[in-house]
Amino acid sequence: MSSVVVTGAGGFLGRPLLAALMRRGCQVHALGRGAVPQGISKQVIWHPVDLLDRGATRNVLGGIRAEGLVHLAWETAHGGYWHSSANLDWVASSLQMLRDFREYGGRRVVIAGSSAEYDWTGTLALDEERTPLRPASPYGHSKNALREILGAWAPQAGLSWTWGRLFNIYGPYEKPERLVPRVIRTLQGGRKLAFDDGAKIRDFLHVDDAADAFAALYTSHFGGAVNIGSGEPLAIKSFIKEIAECIGRPDLVEFGALPASANEPVSLVASVGRLREEIGWSPQSRQERLRETCEWWQSMAQRTADRN
Amino acid sequence: MSSVVVTGAGGFLGRPLLAALMRRGCQVHALGRGAVPQGISKQVIWHPVDLLDRGATRNVLGGIRAEGLVHLAWETAHGGYWHSSANLDWVASSLQMLRDFREYGGRRVVIAGSSAEYDWTGTLALDEERTPLRPASPYGHSKNALREILGAWAPQAGLSWTWGRLFNIYGPYEKPERLVPRVIRTLQGGRKLAFDDGAKIRDFLHVDDAADAFAALYTSHFGGAVNIGSGEPLAIKSFIKEIAECIGRPDLVEFGALPASANEPVSLVASVGRLREEIGWSPQSRQERLRETCEWWQSMAQRTADRN
Repeated sequence: MSSVVVTGAGGFLGRPLLAALMRRGCQVHALGRGAVPQGISKQVIWHPVDLLDRGATRNVLGGIRAEGLVHLAWETAHGGYWHSSANLDWVASSLQMLRDFREYGGRRVVIAGSSAEYDWTGTLALDEERTPLRPASPYGHSKNALREILGAWAPQAGLSWTWGRLFNIYGPYEKPERLVPRVIRTLQGGRKLAFDDGAKIRDFLHVDDAADAFAALYTSHFGGAVNIGSGEPLAIKSFIKEIAECIGRPDLVEFGALPASANEPVSLVASVGRLREEIGWSPQSRQERLRETCEWWQSMAQRTADRN
Repeated sequence: MSSVVVTGAGGFLGRPLLAALMRRGCQVHALGRGAVPQGISKQVIWHPVDLLDRGATRNVLGGIRAEGLVHLAWETAHGGYWHSSANLDWVASSLQMLRDFREYGGRRVVIAGSSAEYDWTGTLALDEERTPLRPASPYGHSKNALREILGAWAPQAGLSWTWGRLFNIYGPYEKPERLVPRVIRTLQGGRKLAFDDGAKIRDFLHVDDAADAFAALYTSHFGGAVNIGSGEPLAIKSFIKEIAECIGRPDLVEFGALPASANEPVSLVASVGRLREEIGWSPQSRQERLRETCEWWQSMAQRTADRN
């Protein structure tokens, strides 16, 4: 049984990834801040550690001596992470962790990359081969630079690696201030939702699908970067309409009530040929995933209401 | 008076840089491994520290609170540094140092980059604007990635930065196993020097000139990357002949006695328009610098002989 360390294990993507790796027969060691979060399987071995503390992280890695590492942890403060100086800390810590992981016998690593590594000025699907890597933020540059170093060093160090570039992810435990929870909670609360024209095109993937794709990346032998997305271009307006239909309150949504942001890219869609053909992975139906997500937020609201 | 921290201060380039910065009126804090090296001016404030120890380095930076940082330190084991895993440590430490330096009020940073960031497959002079950045080694990728992160982060952090890309440097205190010392010492010892055809083109700059260029970079207000080179394409054969003439033993050199390496780039020459026009800097005459260098190695050999 392959033993694998997951960083950011208590996070939005980390949580379902633990389950996805267990489904694929891995022994999972979870690294996260603080105590075991609620709802994590008892089969997961939890190691509380601050990943920015190299000595502490090194000790944990040395104790586990895992074969695999799936590294998701990064600065995630909503909005702030794009420009935060913490990006430098995370590049530094990631490099040190890679060194230590390899030194303790690690063989295979998967790291969470981002669509922000790509040039966002075009309107074609972002493609691993064809789209230029031209980030526009310290976050994007930091991820891109980390991948560059990993790609140059890993083959010499005898480390197998892949890099999953994330697009728009939604689902349970998402930060409430982000788009999908904001829409769902507003409509479930029976409040009006003012929006811009919703014309921008995005690629929405359920977090359980993204986690499953990462587990598939890990167990594959693929080397290099792979987009993790649905590959389906969807206008934000259409997606919000689907959510509103799902909740049964399409009447509450008002498009065009707010001005559209000129700073956001027109289109951010993953080219998923590599994910489908090289990794052999594709997502579940969006309609079903969306229904689950709306139900999850409904049950959360219910539980919060019950407690009060 | 501007106070400036120099890392790698006891090294080949660091040593003359201390003097060059003092000539420009800076108060110089030198960070290096171990005790003060011989021959360093008493006006330099020496701080022995291991830069891979973040806590120790942070303490030193916090004590100095300098305005400037010239960061030269890196893995330098001859040959080995191109592919060493230590490149990851140096990227990590450099990022942490930048964060700490800025946090303690630092304003201007200059970092030593490398011609190894460029695509080496062409034959034109390597140019900051026109030549693609396409490293072929973990060392080149690490430098390139560090610059990418610095360039994205610095403007937001309120840090002014520049990046000096080094080409071939020679002069006093160079590692004896490198090209120029090897040629000089062999010929000064009266031994035959077998060489390949010497047809490859390089850009040779005296280390005191390179140091002076770095000091000029530091005191300029320029932002971005600048090649530090002579800009003069010189066949290695011609350069060796000049050395041999300088020593008075052209009879000892045998070109074509060894096969030429197919792995080395045909041409590595700096385009120096930016260095000349934006920084207003140009090197001293090579003939004079070469004579000084031969004399320095002669005096070293003499001193070694006197001791034995």
